[in-house]
Amino acid sequence: MSGINIGLIGFGNVGSGVVRILRERKTLLGEKMGLQINIKKICDKNLQAKRNVSVDRSLLTNDPYEVINDPQIDIMVELMGGIHPAKEYIAQAIKKGKSVVTANKALLAQEGGELFALASGRGKTIHFEASVGAGIPIVKSLREGLVANKFNGIFGIVNGTSNFVLSQMATSNIDFSDALAQAKARGFAEKDSSLDIEGIDSAHKLVLLAYLCFGKLVDMKDVFVEGISRISLSDINYAKELGFSIKLLAIAKRQADELEVRVHPTLIPQGHLLSSVDGIFNAIYVSSDLAGELLFYGPGAGQSSAASAVVADIVELAQGLKAGLFRSTFNTVQDKLIRKLRRIDEIESRYYIRFMALDKPGVLAKIAGILAQAGISIASVTQKERRKAQIVPIVMVVHDAREKDLRACLSAIDRLGIIREKSVAIRIEEV
Amino acid sequence: MSGINIGLIGFGNVGSGVVRILRERKTLLGEKMGLQINIKKICDKNLQAKRNVSVDRSLLTNDPYEVINDPQIDIMVELMGGIHPAKEYIAQAIKKGKSVVTANKALLAQEGGELFALASGRGKTIHFEASVGAGIPIVKSLREGLVANKFNGIFGIVNGTSNFVLSQMATSNIDFSDALAQAKARGFAEKDSSLDIEGIDSAHKLVLLAYLCFGKLVDMKDVFVEGISRISLSDINYAKELGFSIKLLAIAKRQADELEVRVHPTLIPQGHLLSSVDGIFNAIYVSSDLAGELLFYGPGAGQSSAASAVVADIVELAQGLKAGLFRSTFNTVQDKLIRKLRRIDEIESRYYIRFMALDKPGVLAKIAGILAQAGISIASVTQKERRKAQIVPIVMVVHDAREKDLRACLSAIDRLGIIREKSVAIRIEEV
Repeated sequence: MSGINIGLIGFGNVGSGVVRILRERKTLLGEKMGLQINIKKICDKNLQAKRNVSVDRSLLTNDPYEVINDPQIDIMVELMGGIHPAKEYIAQAIKKGKSVVTANKALLAQEGGELFALASGRGKTIHFEASVGAGIPIVKSLREGLVANKFNGIFGIVNGTSNFVLSQMATSNIDFSDALAQAKARGFAEKDSSLDIEGIDSAHKLVLLAYLCFGKLVDMKDVFVEGISRISLSDINYAKELGFSIKLLAIAKRQADELEVRVHPTLIPQGHLLSSVDGIFNAIYVSSDLAGELLFYGPGAGQSSAASAVVADIVELAQGLKAGLFRSTFNTVQDKLIRKLRRIDEIESRYYIRFMALDKPGVLAKIAGILAQAGISIASVTQKERRKAQIVPIVMVVHDAREKDLRACLSAIDRLGIIREKSVAIRIEEV
Repeated sequence: MSGINIGLIGFGNVGSGVVRILRERKTLLGEKMGLQINIKKICDKNLQAKRNVSVDRSLLTNDPYEVINDPQIDIMVELMGGIHPAKEYIAQAIKKGKSVVTANKALLAQEGGELFALASGRGKTIHFEASVGAGIPIVKSLREGLVANKFNGIFGIVNGTSNFVLSQMATSNIDFSDALAQAKARGFAEKDSSLDIEGIDSAHKLVLLAYLCFGKLVDMKDVFVEGISRISLSDINYAKELGFSIKLLAIAKRQADELEVRVHPTLIPQGHLLSSVDGIFNAIYVSSDLAGELLFYGPGAGQSSAASAVVADIVELAQGLKAGLFRSTFNTVQDKLIRKLRRIDEIESRYYIRFMALDKPGVLAKIAGILAQAGISIASVTQKERRKAQIVPIVMVVHDAREKDLRACLSAIDRLGIIREKSVAIRIEEV
């Protein structure tokens, strides 16, 4: 049976999962593919760390060039993470004629333009199934399964940590900091959780999802990102009373000839499947023109689920290499309907708004008056029980409004003497 | 740009969708793949029917051998349906060196063994993405995306008609016949809906899903099939009170070294995503050992969604053919853990049971006594309001019991003078 040689850079959690699967499933994969995948070299800067897989000492190195420069290695698997030197290693491997598998969403979101172009120019591919939704085959589904489709939008719960925190707040009726502490205690959040909680990780994944759907690699600086650290338990509860869940949603959607790309806490109707995605699970909702509305759901992290995706990528590349396939994946083609990005100021959305106002006659009239002047119409309003002396929460849902107009109104309202805390506005997505 | 020629047999609803997509997306697909897909011949017995796509008269024929025998046609797309002569046409096309795309679940479930072996022996493949879940890329996901996984089970809502009927019963509080009439009025059920309602269509799809997960093409006669026509509104409502939805579920799951393959109405906990799948939507829940618990959701029928899947199959085959790939898909390998099928008598399950009993003292004691003697323990029991003179429904949930034992108990109980209607038992699946 013929064989394909791989070299691995990064022998951490996911890396050791990949090695374990390739070893334990060698026969199964061999039978399915009619070829063997051989691990020829594994590079990590720390070769002493304890791992749940043991490998022959001769495979190990801490010199990445033993992978990059080895002409017998067909596929380089990059699982070291970080931007530099991962980017340089990948670029060099491609120049040496290798195909690449990576789970490095941050790298591809920030430097993908250069790397994808380099690979494409050399007839090579960079596979990245594990970088979004771990073991959920969303990259393959968008690229191959839905190859004939045009997309209206993609809506993802793609960060397990944030989703766990929001779910815990809602189900255990606890505030943000307690829920985050629980996530850390249970190993669902890192010590520095800001990348997850502030939406950056979701934004990296969104850039890749938008690239797959719309063929456009959006610059990270053009992605609007707002995390969940300012979501209060009271907003979760008020939203629930209104029939909504709050989720950190990564959204890329086409509106006429513009593309919106944004990550933020979002009210989702409780009847929608996305609102039932709890805990560390991920789900990606896809609106396509032929196949319709689809949802892909599964664990968004974990050693074996991410490794499952990495191995699927290796297998696909290996199968293509065996056949001498020039390019084992499709070209990414930009959606010709899209002319430009729509900035967050220009989006139109329904909003949930909470004002903390003095409990005095005429307050609501003043607020409503400012909104009315801007042409923003109110769908529902409830004055809640008084929480502190003289201050009452007023919870409102407004019909479609332009973000810029709404923000201007909120600034004006917040300057009124009757408002005692910065008003909160959360976008509602009908999905 | 090089080209791949296809021939189509069956120019009905899905067939005309495929032709429309291949034409309207010719540029897009060409850019993505670097090759053109040309429709060389379209065969249908009725060439006069009105279709929402117009094609050059010279492409049309009613002789299938103009497709089968044309050496320039690389891929035959079979969308005529039925077992014969579709089977013979596919076999002949493979013998003539063609690869095949089909949406014909009934054919593959019944005759797949012969056809898959024929294709495999000739280095050809039969692609069938559209045969399960229409545009949901479930076949590709199981075969490629989850290539390294072993599966514990697969649980599918795979018949949109049945799911619509059950959803309507639950949400509109109407009985089976009214819900079925609504399905027919809205075009979601055929005039003869028995294939859908009695679970046969689900069983066809289940055979294919089990084949993909466990590598074993189970004989249709070994699939336990029970439809939804005997589900009463009262059972739906009692189940709801107990925290369950009733869905027609297609289940293939491994229990130790045995495989269970069955289709039947099933109580699913309301917290589970599958219980929220309503209307004509399909969803397939996959339990895999590496990627974890996954759900794939989308419309289960429709011209463009099925055609989306057919085109994806054509594209995948065309890409492989372009590269001279011997076989563009993986071999199916039987799960070595599985030694035999478990018959329905031998399964273990929790059950929902409804007895219609005389409203007399001692009735419950007699029922419970018979169950206790068989070692079946009761999890909960409720005596409902009396519905007819002297007759009360007793609704019970029992802990895990062997089907054979439970059936024996129900027979014994039904023979008691105190029972006035055949008792109803519905399996509960924890998923």
